Amino acid sequence: MLHGNAVYAQSGGVTSVINGSAYGVITEAMKADFIEKIYGGFQGINGILDENLIDLQEESPNMIEALRYTPGAALGSCRRKLPDLEKNRNEFERIVQVLEAHNIRYFFYNGGNDSMDTAYKVSQIAGQMGYDLISVGVPKTIDNDLPVTDNSPGFGSTAKYNATSLLEGGIDVASMYRDSTKVFVMETMGRHAGWIAASTALARRMAGDPPHIILLPERPVSQDKLLAKIEGTVAQQGYCVVVVSEGAKKEDGTFLADSGIKDQFGHVQLGGAVNVVQSIIKDNLGLKTHGALLDYCQRSGRHLVSRVDLEQAIACGHHAVIIAKEQLNGKMVTIVRESNDPYQWSVDHTDASNIANQEKLLPDSYIQDEGFDITDEFITYCQPLIEGEDFPPFSAGIPQYGKLKNQLIPKKLPAFTT
Amino acid sequence: MLHGNAVYAQSGGVTSVINGSAYGVITEAMKADFIEKIYGGFQGINGILDENLIDLQEESPNMIEALRYTPGAALGSCRRKLPDLEKNRNEFERIVQVLEAHNIRYFFYNGGNDSMDTAYKVSQIAGQMGYDLISVGVPKTIDNDLPVTDNSPGFGSTAKYNATSLLEGGIDVASMYRDSTKVFVMETMGRHAGWIAASTALARRMAGDPPHIILLPERPVSQDKLLAKIEGTVAQQGYCVVVVSEGAKKEDGTFLADSGIKDQFGHVQLGGAVNVVQSIIKDNLGLKTHGALLDYCQRSGRHLVSRVDLEQAIACGHHAVIIAKEQLNGKMVTIVRESNDPYQWSVDHTDASNIANQEKLLPDSYIQDEGFDITDEFITYCQPLIEGEDFPPFSAGIPQYGKLKNQLIPKKLPAFTT
Repeated sequence: MLHGNAVYAQSGGVTSVINGSAYGVITEAMKADFIEKIYGGFQGINGILDENLIDLQEESPNMIEALRYTPGAALGSCRRKLPDLEKNRNEFERIVQVLEAHNIRYFFYNGGNDSMDTAYKVSQIAGQMGYDLISVGVPKTIDNDLPVTDNSPGFGSTAKYNATSLLEGGIDVASMYRDSTKVFVMETMGRHAGWIAASTALARRMAGDPPHIILLPERPVSQDKLLAKIEGTVAQQGYCVVVVSEGAKKEDGTFLADSGIKDQFGHVQLGGAVNVVQSIIKDNLGLKTHGALLDYCQRSGRHLVSRVDLEQAIACGHHAVIIAKEQLNGKMVTIVRESNDPYQWSVDHTDASNIANQEKLLPDSYIQDEGFDITDEFITYCQPLIEGEDFPPFSAGIPQYGKLKNQLIPKKLPAFTT
Repeated sequence: MLHGNAVYAQSGGVTSVINGSAYGVITEAMKADFIEKIYGGFQGINGILDENLIDLQEESPNMIEALRYTPGAALGSCRRKLPDLEKNRNEFERIVQVLEAHNIRYFFYNGGNDSMDTAYKVSQIAGQMGYDLISVGVPKTIDNDLPVTDNSPGFGSTAKYNATSLLEGGIDVASMYRDSTKVFVMETMGRHAGWIAASTALARRMAGDPPHIILLPERPVSQDKLLAKIEGTVAQQGYCVVVVSEGAKKEDGTFLADSGIKDQFGHVQLGGAVNVVQSIIKDNLGLKTHGALLDYCQRSGRHLVSRVDLEQAIACGHHAVIIAKEQLNGKMVTIVRESNDPYQWSVDHTDASNIANQEKLLPDSYIQDEGFDITDEFITYCQPLIEGEDFPPFSAGIPQYGKLKNQLIPKKLPAFTT
């Protein structure tokens, strides 16, 4: 049994419950007899490269507890992607050197596809350098696009937030369509996979309820068919609610969001798919539209998380330490669906290399033939993931979130330059 | 004492708690011995002009109760503004004719400035036509721009929703600014008045917390000063969070949102202020930005309302019936602030003509000299309005909102044509 310190770091876009996984890793690591101290990587892998290691023992028990209900990345996250191992071993070797300098024998990396690639390569390089290290990945992504695992922590809460927002926005439009907005367009995240956009279908209670159209990255959008569908829905319902994934594509395969919208200086305009869909509707149908872009709020809206998602995020953190105790290296925790009704799940693991740089798109069986909606099979899959609530404490009318001290330990190595 | 039926109608943009006022009017009217039946105007004043009157006696007690926690306008709302009385008495006379045909002696109209104008004029015309009618206005607007009343039902919940969203989005950006987004821009509603944008300041707990800049319609934006302020904030904090009101203006007095952004067909682009602010930052500072446009979600986000706001919305509905019982005509219910600490309030009334077509902007004393932020005096005013929570029931992971049957009573008059 390997004895020593451990480090936990957060990577990539945040979720409402990534700190739930932090809570799971940290509390379990603090109890583990084979782990002496648990450190944090400040701002993800940057913290390890720069030797900015957080002393988590300095945080109060209350603040560790607050990780359960605090959004964002409490230790800081990063977008930094490590270079190809073949082209540049430098950064990987630096990581192992920093770990060695602090006798860190356990590396817990919480992220998505890229992060699992990093976790896997760090475990390889350490082996080649003769440094005994256990590297374990903890899954996280609102995009739900990690293979092997049934679902990814973070997705369920984003799905619940977006479905609720769509429900509420839809009720708004239904109230007023007679002499106001006829088409409401809501953009969701999801650059390559349509899981988040699809999840807004959970807002429906009855036939005819919004969303009426869902534009997924998996199905290129025919403008003519889209316009016909909108016209038909407005004729039937009086209004139409369209959900568009940020990664929705045109028939030529380019992103809808890259439709050449320019500002007065001729620069391509930011904003994305929601603006383009509104323009198409306005220009061709002359209908009044409104658009919503929830942006970061959909991945940090901790006030409205799925209890199932939070419990899974925490369990994935816990289980990473259990895998470490079993001395398994280069693994990622996975969630396994045991049954749908009642919904039962457990945690397991897979090789991190099975996850690395792969994306799980919506399967064909989850998408209706027309391409504008999802199937009941998707609902069966997704419904349990948004169940249950876990409201944070409120104070002075807003959520009372925690904030770690993030106190760094003394450095032992010279600064790193790439 | 005038005896007969009553009608209640909803007007203008919805709020998360306008149905709280509906609940207040309807339950109190059902108890009142001077009111025989309470009807609803389907889709606002349209329902009276078209004689589409809802029989609220047909709704189950459970559904009436559900009005307390259901967003949107449960009876339907409208954007229809009646013509100038001097130019066209036609519509006003039609309203009185419909009321008379159904022996409606009490007219409760729930809306903003325009609606109070309507309520006032209907009371005048009825008098001129010799029809005894009591017309009472119930205040409602997320914009908080009604004069006389200390605040307007609907605002507190929008403020709480936006402050919470800003808090959560700000935590997201703070987590990742090192190698991701440097400037997060969030647009709020508020075409003429900056109350909603200002309310996001309630997200702050400590010095340096977002929002760092608030762009208000009351203060034209100097692009140079804005850019300098953003640069300075990024230098100091590592990132910057900007709130922009949809009605923020340029120094020449035109809307920021009308900055000539065009699509590939040369049409002016929808989307508004958030896109323009992002373009300005990107073009001049080259910083990575992200933008959020919560749009309708901020006025229908019933899952996150202020309990104070909800209680006031209900109380305003109740009090409208009490005013009616006192046989006071042409009045609007107002909210009076009795004290700040502890916050205490009561309801009163004013002449609807004092409200009609007037807008209460943020006073100078609520805006910092630089024009990019609000003062502590505003915080003292706004803080109590977002206090307390009132979560709706949830079912299958999303809020379980109600839906009225909205069963219409038989018509007695020929169709109306303008």
